[in-house]
Amino acid sequence: MIRIVQSDEFTLKREEQDLHAKEREIVIDMIKQVRQHGDEAVRAFTRRFDGIDLHDFRVPFEQYEAAYQQVSPLFLEALRDAIRNIRKYHEGQLRPSTLTPMADGVLLGQLIRPLKRVGVYVPGGTAAYPSSVLMNVIPAQVAGVKEIVLVTPPDREGNISPGVLVAIHELGVKEVYRIGGAQAIAALAYGTETIRAVDKIVGPGNIYVALAKQAVFGKVGIESMAGPSDILVIADDSADPEYVAADLLSQAEHGELSQAILLTPSRTLAEQVAAQIVHQVAKLPRRAIAEAAIRNMGAIVVTKDLQEAVAIANRVAPEHLELLVRDAEEYISQIENAGAIFVGAYSSEPVGDYFCGTNHVLPTEGTARFSSPLNVDDFLKKQSLIRYSKEALMKNGRKIIEMAQVEGLEAHANAIRIRLEKEGKGE
Amino acid sequence: MIRIVQSDEFTLKREEQDLHAKEREIVIDMIKQVRQHGDEAVRAFTRRFDGIDLHDFRVPFEQYEAAYQQVSPLFLEALRDAIRNIRKYHEGQLRPSTLTPMADGVLLGQLIRPLKRVGVYVPGGTAAYPSSVLMNVIPAQVAGVKEIVLVTPPDREGNISPGVLVAIHELGVKEVYRIGGAQAIAALAYGTETIRAVDKIVGPGNIYVALAKQAVFGKVGIESMAGPSDILVIADDSADPEYVAADLLSQAEHGELSQAILLTPSRTLAEQVAAQIVHQVAKLPRRAIAEAAIRNMGAIVVTKDLQEAVAIANRVAPEHLELLVRDAEEYISQIENAGAIFVGAYSSEPVGDYFCGTNHVLPTEGTARFSSPLNVDDFLKKQSLIRYSKEALMKNGRKIIEMAQVEGLEAHANAIRIRLEKEGKGE
Repeated sequence: MIRIVQSDEFTLKREEQDLHAKEREIVIDMIKQVRQHGDEAVRAFTRRFDGIDLHDFRVPFEQYEAAYQQVSPLFLEALRDAIRNIRKYHEGQLRPSTLTPMADGVLLGQLIRPLKRVGVYVPGGTAAYPSSVLMNVIPAQVAGVKEIVLVTPPDREGNISPGVLVAIHELGVKEVYRIGGAQAIAALAYGTETIRAVDKIVGPGNIYVALAKQAVFGKVGIESMAGPSDILVIADDSADPEYVAADLLSQAEHGELSQAILLTPSRTLAEQVAAQIVHQVAKLPRRAIAEAAIRNMGAIVVTKDLQEAVAIANRVAPEHLELLVRDAEEYISQIENAGAIFVGAYSSEPVGDYFCGTNHVLPTEGTARFSSPLNVDDFLKKQSLIRYSKEALMKNGRKIIEMAQVEGLEAHANAIRIRLEKEGKGE
Repeated sequence: MIRIVQSDEFTLKREEQDLHAKEREIVIDMIKQVRQHGDEAVRAFTRRFDGIDLHDFRVPFEQYEAAYQQVSPLFLEALRDAIRNIRKYHEGQLRPSTLTPMADGVLLGQLIRPLKRVGVYVPGGTAAYPSSVLMNVIPAQVAGVKEIVLVTPPDREGNISPGVLVAIHELGVKEVYRIGGAQAIAALAYGTETIRAVDKIVGPGNIYVALAKQAVFGKVGIESMAGPSDILVIADDSADPEYVAADLLSQAEHGELSQAILLTPSRTLAEQVAAQIVHQVAKLPRRAIAEAAIRNMGAIVVTKDLQEAVAIANRVAPEHLELLVRDAEEYISQIENAGAIFVGAYSSEPVGDYFCGTNHVLPTEGTARFSSPLNVDDFLKKQSLIRYSKEALMKNGRKIIEMAQVEGLEAHANAIRIRLEKEGKGE
């Protein structure tokens, strides 16, 4: 089912970005409607797309109570442990504002402040992801964001999945609206009568949500756009083929465009993993999706050695990279491009999706070359601080004027010149 | 010339973003041409738009030598001082990778690495900005980017402005191509026979450059899109009206959409500044532009007190904010939204544009609510590191399985389950 190729025959499949012209047009129009008609438009779209007529977008308190009855004690324990881990890891990303004293009494600073108001989109319907709530809300809380607004689409009875509700309640998020789709993104970006506009929107969604986020970018901030998930495993003959196959399939089940690649110098392991994939995939509920992904996008590449595997991995720049090799630690510094690096046999990718503490929002489609996992910095902004001294200006003013004049910006020069003249230092 | 209004009459003018549909179409087609025909297409566009037929995109070495003859000693001194200041300030932004030890021998990390290859666009032609070279290249160098590729359009003789060339040479940038416009962005994003593709593109340009950067975003990283420049001054009756007027005009000369706003509780200062603007603008070479900007986008707002001025400033979220008030330091912590804060009478905005050390690439059009000055982080990426232990997996595996199952992702659950079973901890 999965192709096995030699490294010199391997070319990476990457989908050309579809422009989604039709969906984009729909989304632009929906945003316009929400800007013009506010709540009324959001209500109409919710009726049309979610099949429910909501008078109040807020989640009734009874739904939270009911949700706690519906989740298992094990889920609640897992959720609370995960929250603790995620919080601890992200707290390590905080850093202080800095001041840099320069010559002549000049003081420069980089002030770091939390964003004030952030919107978090959580997908709903059949795909309800409590882990999405944790991964998007906790970094914002750690950053110190005071106002976190969560939106998630309701089912036809106006309910939100219990796992998602429990996650929201455990994190203490108070402002929650039962709306989804492009209408929710528009409401967050531009505000309505009941929902005040936010400064930034994060969180995954379907193509309409993604296009809406792209369309409102500039008015508000967004985190980077997510593409299909992917995993790349580098393994040698010390790796357990059952583990490798299971980890490849864990990403393949996400969608038919998900990419699962094994790089190994061991032809034996390659064949064992290929057999294990056939064996394991047969038992999966999402078998059809996983099979299609493995067939279309998957590959096992037999490399000359581990060095070549590392070089290929750096070209692929995977979202998730697993090192299932002897002395795995030694390869970490060579992995230039990867969203997350999982080291050793027990660092299976789902450990990072749900539990250990790192963020599962990671750069996809090779963007790990230049972008980062979602992190506390995504919810902070910097400000430059300049306190220039009279002494420094008198000393350097002529140089600043010269640079402005070389660029032909005389009003810039004049702002400095007028100060020099007043102090008797003019030309 | 400039309107004076009471604070309760003040509404911020902000241009609706033009969609630039026609220009976008042109740019998309140019990118396609460059992807298909490489250097040949870049050469053809350079012939058409820059009026020169270049056999070699590289800058001939003699041009650097000639450039040093053409710039003034004062400019060279200013440039070297500015480089030193900018480097020192940006070095303060560096930070180390971190490791977070968790329970049960688990180790999590946030690795921080420089991007490998970055493209810097520097505008050319009549508007040649050596300061742009410094502000975009130095943070990349401080971050540790190994390969910096600079592109800038030539004049009809194939020359680059001497100030820009000297700045490039002082910074030691070696890979420089005489190309500009959308064709240069396409070449950087996709690569040609002579120019290898980069990971990220930064730097300002005209509307075609901006649209091209937007179009290649995803294939490569870009920094945020720049809009018209703006300045907001908060001043009390201790401020010198000549300084205030000069600083407002320094941004107004950038373009007709540049925004210059004064907020002051002093009606006297408001009137003095209005008169000074009329007086000073008359002497400016870029008078027509500055006048149009002041008329269309400028405003002097008389506020009830300084607290109200701060509140309005936070709503405007200016690119540059000057505090020309008594005890200016006391207001810094209240300025939530501003790209750069200039404190006191000698911190005139051009000090930051050219010299003091902070970056002049700042968030415009109110985006200071959620984005930051260009900084070293823009040239770094993060990677998550997960080394999960056998002990931790045996202890927490069931919880991870439960969370995966609640989300309906059975292959995720299976990757954990298969490990528990092998260790005799299966269900």
